Amino acid sequence: MLTVGVIGCGYWGPNLIRNFVNLKNSRVTACADISQERLDHMKQLYPTIETTTNFKEIIDDPEIDAVVIATPVSSHHTIAHVAIEAGKHVFVEKPLADSVEKGTKLVEFAGGRKRILMVGHTFVYTAAVNKIKELIHSGDLGDIYYISSSRVNLGIFQDDINVVWDLAPHDISIMNYILNSRPEAISAIGHSYIRPEIEDVAFITLIYPNSVHANIQVSWLNPNKIRKTTVVGSKKMLVYDDVSSLEKIRIYDKGVTVQPHYDTFGEFQLSYRYGDISIPKLDDAEPLKIECQHFIDCIEKGELPRSSGVHGLEVLLALDAAGRSMKAQGQIVHIEYPDLTVTE
Amino acid sequence: MLTVGVIGCGYWGPNLIRNFVNLKNSRVTACADISQERLDHMKQLYPTIETTTNFKEIIDDPEIDAVVIATPVSSHHTIAHVAIEAGKHVFVEKPLADSVEKGTKLVEFAGGRKRILMVGHTFVYTAAVNKIKELIHSGDLGDIYYISSSRVNLGIFQDDINVVWDLAPHDISIMNYILNSRPEAISAIGHSYIRPEIEDVAFITLIYPNSVHANIQVSWLNPNKIRKTTVVGSKKMLVYDDVSSLEKIRIYDKGVTVQPHYDTFGEFQLSYRYGDISIPKLDDAEPLKIECQHFIDCIEKGELPRSSGVHGLEVLLALDAAGRSMKAQGQIVHIEYPDLTVTE
Amino acid sequence: MLTVGVIGCGYWGPNLIRNFVNLKNSRVTACADISQERLDHMKQLYPTIETTTNFKEIIDDPEIDAVVIATPVSSHHTIAHVAIEAGKHVFVEKPLADSVEKGTKLVEFAGGRKRILMVGHTFVYTAAVNKIKELIHSGDLGDIYYISSSRVNLGIFQDDINVVWDLAPHDISIMNYILNSRPEAISAIGHSYIRPEIEDVAFITLIYPNSVHANIQVSWLNPNKIRKTTVVGSKKMLVYDDVSSLEKIRIYDKGVTVQPHYDTFGEFQLSYRYGDISIPKLDDAEPLKIECQHFIDCIEKGELPRSSGVHGLEVLLALDAAGRSMKAQGQIVHIEYPDLTVTE
Amino acid sequence: MLTVGVIGCGYWGPNLIRNFVNLKNSRVTACADISQERLDHMKQLYPTIETTTNFKEIIDDPEIDAVVIATPVSSHHTIAHVAIEAGKHVFVEKPLADSVEKGTKLVEFAGGRKRILMVGHTFVYTAAVNKIKELIHSGDLGDIYYISSSRVNLGIFQDDINVVWDLAPHDISIMNYILNSRPEAISAIGHSYIRPEIEDVAFITLIYPNSVHANIQVSWLNPNKIRKTTVVGSKKMLVYDDVSSLEKIRIYDKGVTVQPHYDTFGEFQLSYRYGDISIPKLDDAEPLKIECQHFIDCIEKGELPRSSGVHGLEVLLALDAAGRSMKAQGQIVHIEYPDLTVTE
Repeated sequence: MLTVGVIGCGYWGPNLIRNFVNLKNSRVTACADISQERLDHMKQLYPTIETTTNFKEIIDDPEIDAVVIATPVSSHHTIAHVAIEAGKHVFVEKPLADSVEKGTKLVEFAGGRKRILMVGHTFVYTAAVNKIKELIHSGDLGDIYYISSSRVNLGIFQDDINVVWDLAPHDISIMNYILNSRPEAISAIGHSYIRPEIEDVAFITLIYPNSVHANIQVSWLNPNKIRKTTVVGSKKMLVYDDVSSLEKIRIYDKGVTVQPHYDTFGEFQLSYRYGDISIPKLDDAEPLKIECQHFIDCIEKGELPRSSGVHGLEVLLALDAAGRSMKAQGQIVHIEYPDLTVTE
Repeated sequence: MLTVGVIGCGYWGPNLIRNFVNLKNSRVTACADISQERLDHMKQLYPTIETTTNFKEIIDDPEIDAVVIATPVSSHHTIAHVAIEAGKHVFVEKPLADSVEKGTKLVEFAGGRKRILMVGHTFVYTAAVNKIKELIHSGDLGDIYYISSSRVNLGIFQDDINVVWDLAPHDISIMNYILNSRPEAISAIGHSYIRPEIEDVAFITLIYPNSVHANIQVSWLNPNKIRKTTVVGSKKMLVYDDVSSLEKIRIYDKGVTVQPHYDTFGEFQLSYRYGDISIPKLDDAEPLKIECQHFIDCIEKGELPRSSGVHGLEVLLALDAAGRSMKAQGQIVHIEYPDLTVTE
Repeated sequence: MLTVGVIGCGYWGPNLIRNFVNLKNSRVTACADISQERLDHMKQLYPTIETTTNFKEIIDDPEIDAVVIATPVSSHHTIAHVAIEAGKHVFVEKPLADSVEKGTKLVEFAGGRKRILMVGHTFVYTAAVNKIKELIHSGDLGDIYYISSSRVNLGIFQDDINVVWDLAPHDISIMNYILNSRPEAISAIGHSYIRPEIEDVAFITLIYPNSVHANIQVSWLNPNKIRKTTVVGSKKMLVYDDVSSLEKIRIYDKGVTVQPHYDTFGEFQLSYRYGDISIPKLDDAEPLKIECQHFIDCIEKGELPRSSGVHGLEVLLALDAAGRSMKAQGQIVHIEYPDLTVTE
Repeated sequence: MLTVGVIGCGYWGPNLIRNFVNLKNSRVTACADISQERLDHMKQLYPTIETTTNFKEIIDDPEIDAVVIATPVSSHHTIAHVAIEAGKHVFVEKPLADSVEKGTKLVEFAGGRKRILMVGHTFVYTAAVNKIKELIHSGDLGDIYYISSSRVNLGIFQDDINVVWDLAPHDISIMNYILNSRPEAISAIGHSYIRPEIEDVAFITLIYPNSVHANIQVSWLNPNKIRKTTVVGSKKMLVYDDVSSLEKIRIYDKGVTVQPHYDTFGEFQLSYRYGDISIPKLDDAEPLKIECQHFIDCIEKGELPRSSGVHGLEVLLALDAAGRSMKAQGQIVHIEYPDLTVTE
């Protein structure tokens, strides 16, 4: 039984508390927030949990094994750092930090102290994303050509970050995870319609090894809520629609085949294949529950989490590159990944 | 009653013949194709039409007032030029030509000879596109922020042109028309998965005056046929789904409002509006019929067609810029428009 | 501030407790269930609420003003009766009772004791159903011709009641409410595929005054979850899709018009109208909250609830008639309504 | 090469002419209609076809092997009878005749003369319907429980027949064909909203052997065009949506399983299965072409057509029973089938 303290009880924190409370091998003994009102609400829901407006009390509590951080992104680094320093394992909401530099420091620091550092990239714990990863790596889809993703809706405009930092972490985390890879270069074009300098619509192209491309459209200015990812392979194609509750993944037995031998006129002979569509039944367990359980399991077994600090840092590196490309009107930005294999 | 000759009886030519045959003030007296089999088929359908494998016979026929060209794009310039030279009015399928240079020459030549030169950009004759133009220019949508368009499906790969030249002319023509404007600069990223050097997937950003942006996704490698355009304005938003037969346009009374006075903390006060959706009933006349009628009317009245040679040339200029940007990995390319107002 | 006791903490009871706890002018002081496990769970969620396995303790508690009953339908009559006898106001889940006889007795008893008796027909508190009622009674739809409803999905088979008693109460309650009327006669055909004698698929026709017909399809054996109601009027038509979260109501400006003067050949001249579609934005407040508030308000003001005991009894009378018609293979059964206007 | 004459060139006749013209082993030499304008139009489309306003000329033409009848239903019997008498094979549009009596006479007459009599029930030639039949008879769906079908839209009101005779022949023909059976009894309820005595909305229940039920909803008064049939079996379920162009059939691996051994409390133990959905790719050949080819093939080989006269007559018997049930407000009407096995 691991003991968990939660810092940040705003929008997302209560979901984390609920899950860690209900797991068999964890319990929540304390939570912190700067708002007494939020703390009172937590107390009402979970009378046995201690509350405090001073997050240091959670850091200093020797009975607490793990700290869960669901505060605004600008405070992630500071809180996570002192928690690791105090010997705690840390679960921090995505994104890992508000800069590559801070994120790198956190990953190195946690690695040096042999503490688990996990980032709340929930999508890698969903049945749909894992089904897609399985279909890619089993070879069912053939060679992957490209991935195209739309994550758009009306609002909610964030105060401190642009739409890329708000929405694209989901897509980048998903793509890195299902491809088991990371982008070498990025081009991004962003537009700011509502507030100066803060992009609310952006188009991002990620170039992965082996010429696999991924395109992401994110927008706070769209009449419909769309979360749709298309994965195109040489054998099959699939569409992942996260807004659909019952039919999230459609697999199309469709493709274009290049005939191996073609004539001297220099033209390719192509054939098109239009086959069946299948919609697999997916497990409908709550992804957040699986994620919280995974954090506890990794602590107990000393294993690297699926959404490790390095995974979270790779997302930061892509976000940072996208930001630089947007400033340069879409010019390609290459990403250099630090060597962190030793520390983690 | 105008007399029409049609050159090219392949995929699209028969549709043009059928429409010009059925109009009240036009008749088709001759058609040409290099395939005798296609000509025999035309003869079977329209026994009174003369057929020939030599398109010059149509050019030289003094009874023919107008020539309709539905041949491969590489031959557009040559055929249209001799037709204009022979005093014919010319309707040429889109795109106007296979290069900006040839397109410019055609427009100048037709202007100098006072002949009508019209390009077959059919979408500007659809009820849906005209409804969108009306909604934009009536002010119903407010200021236009951006337009986002997807035109994707599986195949059909063209032999001689890439997916941008195949599919994007529709979007560029529509956008120029509904905005009553033309892009100042373009950024495009393309990928070639099936055949080397011929892009089959591309993402294009067009920058119009007043910071209006338009993004176009075109693909020959998508499991679904999608033709969807989203227009986002400051007051309302709309989605135009050309695949839907009965509900092509959905108008969303939704938006984000910036409060005029905001506090000294430098934060904008935003409010969101989520209102009704309306789906206007659109006229379901065949756009091609309207387009053909428009060509005849413009000849009779001596008026500039809606999809004039200049309109077609502006599309070519955008395609050309997109091609140059793709070669430069997405670098922004500015477009310079020739001054053709005198000639047309 | 009214004091509420809740009897039955199974599937639905906790939702009722949650709402009465959160209302400003009510509080829940006690709940009862035969399962100690369910009571422990309630205690965990609401530590201040007293729990008991003996519902009589709630009945006998002089501090409790109102009793909310969410037990299996066979116990509704017994519990509601003693609660009214003890001077409590009563909210009972739908259906009111398991027979017309018991339902009638309850309504008469509550009327005689001047107690509020309300039945949990939640749909009459939804924004969608009230929008439809408004559209009907404003005359926007014209004369109502017929209503057709499908309420089907896979399972959940009930142990003690057939699919008509499980699902049709929703439709009958909605139809009686939006038409402000009640059926004069009913024909129903039912089939039993999985268990003998317990219908799992049924088709019901309700004949309202003025030749308004309503048809209901209910099924526990359908691959899709469908909750769709079509209302056809002489001026407009609408479709209410309760499964859709954002577009529940679509209003079609469509119709068939009979020309007033027609020729002597005895043929009607009809004209069809195909117009716009509109999708009104609906308030998304939780209907159950509105329903609970309404119960408290009716007690405080001494007013008749929208889903009164009489409303609930009229639903029972229709269910009973449907059952008799099913036994007679669809033969029409006329409904006689008792005169309860004095008592309520 | 068989020679075909077509009688009736109104709405459907031209489609039949086009197909018989294009088949390899048939040609159309003559067509008849009472409207000279329609004949002129046919002449324009097919200059080599003789036209006449006197259908007897086609009957009397010794070179004509087969007569295709696409006239109003009231004339089917008369024309078909004289055609058979003259030794022609006969294709008659659905329904076979306007009464059971006339239909029976036609079938007996054609059988006695050894002529092919085929009825234009086109749906039995579609890829979708044949796929469903295959899924049923392969046992993939398990035992069939019931079929439920909706065929509704706005208009077009027919002058001479009600909505049951207009739309239900499609469903009855499909159901008889896929079940390889015919209904023993029918209950139907119809309503007349627009014109007195002519039903424009109806609900029909067909009882097939082995307690298989089928329910059909037909309406000329619905805002949407719906053609949807649900087939529920003990192992799988499917939905056939004929309005969808690419995804007509969805097969659901879903079901309810009754556990073989259950306890003495009289309750069944049920388990639910929620599995994958599959959408088979269907051949997209034109069904009418397959139907016309089948007619020619049956003549050449002397085989009984899939949509034989007997099939058409069985549809008439069901329509007739539905009409009698509607007059009796839904009372069940049993169908007696004549013994025609000898004659055909």
